[in-house]
Parts: sequence; structure tokens; C-alpha cells
Amino acid sequence: MATDQTSPGKTHNLRIDGSRLWASLMETAAFGGTPAGGINRLTLSPEDGQVRDWFRAACEAAGLEVGVDALGTQYALRRGRDMSRKPIACGSHLDTQPTGGKFDGILGVLAGLEVMRSLDDAGIETEAPLLLVNWTNEEGSRFAPAMMASAAYAGEFTTEEILAKRDAAGISVAEALDAIGCRGPEPVGGREIGAFVELHIEQGPILEAEGKTIGVVEGGQGIAWFDGTVTGFESHAGTTPMPRRRDALLGLAELALAVERIACAHAPSAVATMGEAVIGAPSRNVVPGQIRFTLDLRDPRSETLDAMETALQEAAAEIGTRRNLAFQIERIWRKEPVPFDTKLVAAVDAAAEALGHSRRRIISGAGHDACNLAGRVPTTMIFVPCKDGVSHNESESATPADCAAGADVLLHTLLALANAPRA
Amino acid sequence: MATDQTSPGKTHNLRIDGSRLWASLMETAAFGGTPAGGINRLTLSPEDGQVRDWFRAACEAAGLEVGVDALGTQYALRRGRDMSRKPIACGSHLDTQPTGGKFDGILGVLAGLEVMRSLDDAGIETEAPLLLVNWTNEEGSRFAPAMMASAAYAGEFTTEEILAKRDAAGISVAEALDAIGCRGPEPVGGREIGAFVELHIEQGPILEAEGKTIGVVEGGQGIAWFDGTVTGFESHAGTTPMPRRRDALLGLAELALAVERIACAHAPSAVATMGEAVIGAPSRNVVPGQIRFTLDLRDPRSETLDAMETALQEAAAEIGTRRNLAFQIERIWRKEPVPFDTKLVAAVDAAAEALGHSRRRIISGAGHDACNLAGRVPTTMIFVPCKDGVSHNESESATPADCAAGADVLLHTLLALANAPRA
Repeated sequence: MATDQTSPGKTHNLRIDGSRLWASLMETAAFGGTPAGGINRLTLSPEDGQVRDWFRAACEAAGLEVGVDALGTQYALRRGRDMSRKPIACGSHLDTQPTGGKFDGILGVLAGLEVMRSLDDAGIETEAPLLLVNWTNEEGSRFAPAMMASAAYAGEFTTEEILAKRDAAGISVAEALDAIGCRGPEPVGGREIGAFVELHIEQGPILEAEGKTIGVVEGGQGIAWFDGTVTGFESHAGTTPMPRRRDALLGLAELALAVERIACAHAPSAVATMGEAVIGAPSRNVVPGQIRFTLDLRDPRSETLDAMETALQEAAAEIGTRRNLAFQIERIWRKEPVPFDTKLVAAVDAAAEALGHSRRRIISGAGHDACNLAGRVPTTMIFVPCKDGVSHNESESATPADCAAGADVLLHTLLALANAPRA
Repeated sequence: MATDQTSPGKTHNLRIDGSRLWASLMETAAFGGTPAGGINRLTLSPEDGQVRDWFRAACEAAGLEVGVDALGTQYALRRGRDMSRKPIACGSHLDTQPTGGKFDGILGVLAGLEVMRSLDDAGIETEAPLLLVNWTNEEGSRFAPAMMASAAYAGEFTTEEILAKRDAAGISVAEALDAIGCRGPEPVGGREIGAFVELHIEQGPILEAEGKTIGVVEGGQGIAWFDGTVTGFESHAGTTPMPRRRDALLGLAELALAVERIACAHAPSAVATMGEAVIGAPSRNVVPGQIRFTLDLRDPRSETLDAMETALQEAAAEIGTRRNLAFQIERIWRKEPVPFDTKLVAAVDAAAEALGHSRRRIISGAGHDACNLAGRVPTTMIFVPCKDGVSHNESESATPADCAAGADVLLHTLLALANAPRA
């Protein structure tokens, strides 16, 4: 019977149980649940400890072997027929923003659990083992940086560096792990992974707007962050003639509109945002003399980021010269674009095709654990729509049907990868 | 001898003593003087009490009769030959902003004192009496409204209304007056004034930029103040495509530039300022969803203010429709333009001409006690340059030569008015 279990005839009609997945989402939403229907479950908080305990118990009830590494990341292994093959992994994170929703990260973990349960129900054994991962501290709200455990897995930080990070109250990651009994014995990065597939809500409006169910994610955007100031001269709003003004706000206004044009010149992929702008000593009858601001530029291609950065500085120089203002714009961070594994992207696309779900290729605008994993392991993601594109908000919402569709695509992608002939 | 004292031969070569004026400015700057060279002399503070005592003593030493009204305003009378004529008045205020300079208001009062001293030195008696006034609370930093005593003099408020105003610490004007012993017996507005001439620094850059010594002030601008909000939709800076954004900051930027164009369309008189703009919940990776802002529009003509207000609302409506943003812009205050008395303006012009000072007609961009007086009494002002147009700042600066020139113009304007034939 064993060979039959991986035959297309046995699996191609397989679907996860959407009701059970939804019930898990709603059940775990009680850990840190807020009156407004969201979740406040900061990483390594007591509530995070509660959901971790629930998750371990649910995995063990599904016959999975649960291990924990030195940063608290939970690994639930489903044995395969050939245990010499690296496991095919999925997962995401169970922590939330302080006023987070019920789907960001959580869907990826609980859909992975639902995949394991559905395979058990159908009595299916895969060639390669399967692995379900709950990464510690994706959100970064309590400890910086965000996505720290997956970054440590990929070798970007040492375990000791991460253990020493402290929250605003001065509590270290090590102390927080011990406080909820979640520091495990496994070395971080010790487990080999053959491939990683993360299901996630889009956190943007594209799928919903286009009526697509599945986002086949081709990669993560590159990001460049800037801190800037524009300095003019503070003067009296009543006595300073328009031609003699050095109005910092008008320079800022021109720059904000220039940055919008720069992003639109690289449509449809590029985005640019002036998210913060603070006038120094604002007063209704004083011409603004200085403003601090931030800029966030993103695009899936390094070359485009380069071009946008150059255009930004050129625009600031031109505006500054024309308006007699001094712009200082400093790049404080740049993350290069993360292309996902083309074979895995094709596998997600094929699974969505076979399941008959509408889909489009998409780039992840937000950061995810998958973006870190991609530095070490063949990786991709699956997106499903979320209402109005809203995330990091208690009103974050996704439909049961979309969650089930995403979990089905995850199921069939994992099956295809785990049952593929050895490379 | 009496008739000779008003003959042109006796007065046309008369000049004030610039050194004595400067010494008075520097001496009184010690009352509330700051390490940075400015003055912190809030109205009715102990330091204001000190300078009021100094002023009373100096006036009495110059033979003036000092009276005080129920709001603390000091009146120093120099008797004229014909005491049935209403006195020709000058003056300004001795209070300052918390980080104010040594000239705003103070120059007008101490130049008036210097005029009285110089007339004494020359043994000159005028036909009409002269009156030197130190108005209580011009600045408005401690008690609102600004220019309250001159407004009460002109009948815009009752004395009781003003006495009941409280500062941030809950102290009333009445209590503050009594605390420094400055509540006088005279009814507010009880003294008749024949004309009022206020010497003041320009508080703007025009005279300095054009190399003119004297500003012949034709009136005060009208002012319209607005509170506004622009509301879009807060969204993720990484996942929201440019065409799907409802970025409040970009709408604000367009409005700020539109308001600049609206003012420039009424050049050179109109000015417009967006002085405050505060993003709600700003974050570098969030598209701004809502911004509060203020607008300040000014022009010497009511019709122009009307046109600017209309253009402002039209611009906001157009931007809002195009960008799917909601603008709400409410006018919270409007002050109509104040034209000064044309005969008095001509008298200032003639005095400056006779003294050989370069000059230009100018509109007061800031509010002054003179703007209130103009509602009851024929009024005008004389401006002298201040460095870089800076005022309300400890670095506020004017030259001894310009201060003396302004005082000389004040002297000869007062002489011309006080010695003119009865109307």
C-alpha cells in the first residue's frame, strides 16, 4: 500500500478541512484576544507562551515530533518515507503586533498544522519528511530586529547576539525565553531544511482589488530607508513677503510630490512613502524653518532602487537650489531585493492551477521570515487576500474560503516538493 | 518768546539724542534680560513691574504727568499751550515675548520718552499737549488676547472682560495687576486722544532688503486663520501600490503649493502660510492617513482676502476629488484690514522727507496696538528696519542710527500734528 500513498490518484482530490482550520484560527485568537477582535500577543509574552503550549500539544496530537531551538523557535516534524531527505518546511509566526489581527503569521502556522492533520486523515505518507515551523519574534514590536529568529537561522546573527537584545523594559530575549519556559536545547540553524514555503495574508490590497484568490510570490522587495531634514528660515507669517521666504514646508511639499513621481516612473513595481514629517517649533503664524522627515523606497530590482535613490537626491538638490533651502537626506538602511526560488514559485503556481484558483504573480511588499530563509534555503510564499489590504490592525480580516484556498495550495505545493524525485 | 518756540526756525533742525535713546534701550533691557541678549518680560510680571517703575520715574523726571488706567496702561502727559486740544499721542508697549528682543514695542515707548526729553532740552512747547502711552499686554504671551488694553481703549472689550482673563497658571489680569501694584484709578478709554503715532521695528525684511530707513505705514493687513484636516487612508508603505494610495501627506503637499500660488497671484501684497502640519500616528513605513494643519492668509484688502479664501477652498476640493481625500478647512478667525489715517500717513512721509531719510510706503504685516487705536482715533505707524527681519527672538536687532532716525521722524510728525492749526 505504501507506494499508492503518493500516487496522484490518491492525493489530487485531497483538500484540507477549511472548517477545522478556521476553528483553530478562532480558538488560538483567544490567547491575547482584544475586545476589538484583534490580538495583543507580543513575542515571548505570557500570551505567546499560551499559544506555544497550545501549538505543541496540537502538533503532538497530530503525531508530529516537536523540538525547540535556543531562540524558542518550534519545529514540528512529520516523518517521511525517506528520512535521509531534508524536510520540506512550511510555517510562519504566532506572535502579533500590540494591536494586531488574527491572521498575520498565524494563518501560515495553523494552515501548516491543518495540512499535517489532513494528511493524517487521508493516511498519506510523503517521501521527504515535512516540517512545520513557528519562528520566534517575527513582528519586532517587543525586540528589535524583527524576524530575528529566522535571521539567526540563516546566519545573519549569532544566537548570543539575539539572546542579548533587550525590550523597552530592559528584559533580554534570554530572560524572556526563560520566563515562559521556551528556551529549547537545539542549536539555532542546526536543522537542515530542503525547502521553505510560507503562506501569509497579502497585507496589501492587490489580490482583493483584482479578485484573485492566490498570490504566487516571486520575491521580496528591496528597501531603502532615509532620514532627512530640510532647513530654510523661520520668519513671521505676516511680515515676510512671499519672494523673500525660505519656507521649509514648501520644499518638503515639492519633495514629497517628486518622490511620488519617481516611484510612478518605475510603475507598477516601485513604491515610495514619506511617512514622517515633523515641523520644528510649529506655529500658525510662523513660516516653517526646519522639518525632519523620513522616506521609504521599495522595488523588487536593485537597479531600480539605485535609480530612485539618485533621482531622489537630484530632486532635493534642484528644489533646494531653487528655493534656497538646505536638504540633508541620509540613507540609514538598505535591504537588497530577495528573489524566491523559481522552481518553488513554479510549484506554487502549478498547485494553484491544479486547484482551479484564480491567481497572479506578486511581490511581497512587507518583510517576512521567508525573506530571511531565502538566504539559505530554496524558499517561496503563498499569499491570500485580506480585507481592504489592512494588516497590523485589530480589524485585519480574511475569509474562511480564502484561508482554506491558501492552505490547499500549501498542501499541494508541499506534496509536490516532498514527493518529487531526488534531485 | 512763547510764539517763537513753534516756529520752523526753532524746530526744523531739532534732532533727538540718539545716544541717550540707545542708553535707555540698553538700560531697560536689564529688566528681564536673558543671557542670550534678549528679554523675557511677560506682561504684568515682576520684571514688567520693574520697567514700569523705571518708566514712571523717567517720565516724571522729564516733567510729564503720569496716570494709570484700570488695566495698567500708563499715560505720560506733556502739557501744551492749548490744553483744550486733544493730546497728540505716541507710544507702544514695554512687555515682551518669553524669548523676545530688545526693540519690539520698547523702541516706540522709549523713542517717545526721548522725544519729550529733546523737546525739554530745546525748551519747546507745543500747541496741543503730547501724550506718551505704554499699553498693557501687547504680546499676548501670558494673557489672551494680544493687544488687549488698546482693544479695550477702543471699545472692543469691557474692562471687566479683560480683568477676568486668566493666564495658564489661573491668575487673572486683575490679580496680576494688583500683584505688581499696577492697577490705576483711571477709567479705560476715558482719555481722549487727538492722534496716535506708533514707532516700531518692521518685524519683516522689506526695509533692510531695499536699503530704506523709514517705513511709512499705510495700514494693517487683514488676516484670515483656518484649521484644517485632510483625511485619506493609512496603509502599508510596502504593500500598497502607488495608484491605490490615499496619501494625506501628498494632498497636503499639493495644498501647500496651491496656497503659495494663490498668494503670489495677489503679489506683492498678499501672503499665505501653512505654519502647522501634524501627521496622525506617523511611522516611516505607513502611508499617512490623516493630517491636521493651519493656514494664515493676509492682505491689506478685504476683497483680496475674500478671493484667496474662495481659491483656497476650490483648490482643496479639486485636490481632494482627484486624490480621493477629504479636506475640511474651517475659518476660525478673520480680522478685516485696518487702513491708517491718510493725513497722518502724509505727515510721517513729510517728516521723513524733510529729514532726508530714504523711505517707502509699507503695510504692517503684524498686529500692533495702533491697529486697535485706528478704530477710534486717527492713527498711523512709523517702521524702522530690523536685522534679517527677525523679531520675537532674542537675536532681534536694530541699529542705533535707525532707531534715532525713527525717533526723529516721530518727533517731527508729533510737532507737525501738535502745532497744526485747529481743524
